[in-house]
Amino acid sequence: MESNLNLPLAKDIEKAYGLICEHVSRTPVLESRSVNRFLGCSVFFKCENFQRVGAFKFRGATHAVLRLNDAEAAQGVITHSSGNHAAALALAASQRGIPAYIVMPENAPEIKKKAVAGYGGIITFCAPTQTDREQTMLRIKAETGATFIHPYDNFNVICGQGTASLELMQQNPELDIVVAPVGGGGLLSGTATYVKGRYPNVQVFGAEPLNADDAHRSLRDRTIYPSIKPQTIADGLLTSLSPLTFSILSAHCDGIITVPEQLIVEAMRMVWERMKIIVEPSSAVPVAAIMQKPDLFRGKRVGIIISGGNVDLDRLPWQR
Amino acid sequence: MESNLNLPLAKDIEKAYGLICEHVSRTPVLESRSVNRFLGCSVFFKCENFQRVGAFKFRGATHAVLRLNDAEAAQGVITHSSGNHAAALALAASQRGIPAYIVMPENAPEIKKKAVAGYGGIITFCAPTQTDREQTMLRIKAETGATFIHPYDNFNVICGQGTASLELMQQNPELDIVVAPVGGGGLLSGTATYVKGRYPNVQVFGAEPLNADDAHRSLRDRTIYPSIKPQTIADGLLTSLSPLTFSILSAHCDGIITVPEQLIVEAMRMVWERMKIIVEPSSAVPVAAIMQKPDLFRGKRVGIIISGGNVDLDRLPWQR
Repeated sequence: MESNLNLPLAKDIEKAYGLICEHVSRTPVLESRSVNRFLGCSVFFKCENFQRVGAFKFRGATHAVLRLNDAEAAQGVITHSSGNHAAALALAASQRGIPAYIVMPENAPEIKKKAVAGYGGIITFCAPTQTDREQTMLRIKAETGATFIHPYDNFNVICGQGTASLELMQQNPELDIVVAPVGGGGLLSGTATYVKGRYPNVQVFGAEPLNADDAHRSLRDRTIYPSIKPQTIADGLLTSLSPLTFSILSAHCDGIITVPEQLIVEAMRMVWERMKIIVEPSSAVPVAAIMQKPDLFRGKRVGIIISGGNVDLDRLPWQR
Repeated sequence: MESNLNLPLAKDIEKAYGLICEHVSRTPVLESRSVNRFLGCSVFFKCENFQRVGAFKFRGATHAVLRLNDAEAAQGVITHSSGNHAAALALAASQRGIPAYIVMPENAPEIKKKAVAGYGGIITFCAPTQTDREQTMLRIKAETGATFIHPYDNFNVICGQGTASLELMQQNPELDIVVAPVGGGGLLSGTATYVKGRYPNVQVFGAEPLNADDAHRSLRDRTIYPSIKPQTIADGLLTSLSPLTFSILSAHCDGIITVPEQLIVEAMRMVWERMKIIVEPSSAVPVAAIMQKPDLFRGKRVGIIISGGNVDLDRLPWQR
């Protein structure tokens, strides 16, 4: 599969960082002797669970919003999402004082509706089908002139997400490997672009639930497979690659490690118990990848992008 | 009540820090815009939940162990405890390569027995009565010559605990108020000694469950009240003040704020949800104190010592 897409470079991520660094939190990198002993390597957790809105998504959304010119910005931004991207875009827009139109399925969890509304997002509910989502989005976009900000098939969003690994490398430059979770591929694309661009000897892996292994298969077979009704606890990793993320990962990613559900739950609980930080299931997937492939990581210095910490505390996976 | 006790000074805590700083983790100080908005002040969380063994107790235990001369050390240390102090003393002793004898009630939770054993503690079980605890401890002490390390009625332990606020003040010197939880008073004594000694204009408050308000009553009435079967979720704060901690707090503490159980649970959940860190109920008590007395804290810069993060993830308070 050939691509004529404009792929980001490390310098685009550095420029993005210059634009957003005053708006995003510089999240800490945490280590734990106990975790290192358990995993058999030295792990550096880049804690985007401490990022504003509780997820790395705020980086990409902020960058996309700040890249709009004043005329575009005045008409606002729009997306269809029920997850962290919607909350991130709502907050990023409100920080610039512009409207964010969020199309959400009417059956989205109450907690997510409240989060988006709390950040000032203007919600329109739609039927819970892909068709109605997109039609509702297009209708409101036509009415308002708002700019559509895709959660990951977007150059500026990807550059924003890459700033997490830029900070990580500033904080811990001596890494051998960096691992990020992969759903639609925005975070992993930004990560691979930056790390491979500036530190070509560092390996970059994606980590993916075995039950949602479309990225693994897509890169292996060099074609984008859709992610069809995946059953995984890692609810941030349900989507499939896009043309842009597929192209970037084909160029820069050293591989995708797939992990079974049970290991994701075990890794998540291990991080909670030993690190004392709250990470969402999607963030436990890279940790599970280390447990899945111990030989690959043994004795290495490994950076992990902890993608977020938005978890329903009334429904923890080990209690189901 | 007069005291001839030798009270620690700020310089004793500085000396303690010189001795232990390579052995303890320099824990981060975290902030959250969302929490600050919620509480109406700027809060700086000194994250001792990230300390080794998951609690500040490792500071005091390490200091007490390092203060032993070689002859004393060779005979080991002993304590009776089922909590964080036991785990901390076991690890501190194993780091120096000396034995730690831990007397635990036979009905202690399995998770705590495992933690102490995992850190190399030599456990002796006793009947779950204060009398049998002490007799068992004295018997083993006589047999081994081990030095008894009280969890808080101990000069060196208190100096060790004070190093958490020493680091906090290095990390965020512009505080108006510092709040720490109070059970036996070791952490609050170290905190008040250091902060009042070096920053006399900073206020230091203790925070205590209303259902275990013996420290509040003891300081008010100038006599040590025992803590009799207190019913509180804050299981680290069940003990009463000792002669030493009573004397220190009488000299240096600006007051104790008591908080109802419901507010402790609410504060704990708020910290989990907004900070994405795991704190134990005892650590939520100072946060609840801010919610209880908003006028006292409004607009101020407030340091909180997050005492620990050891929580049974199968039994969270909002699920009972």
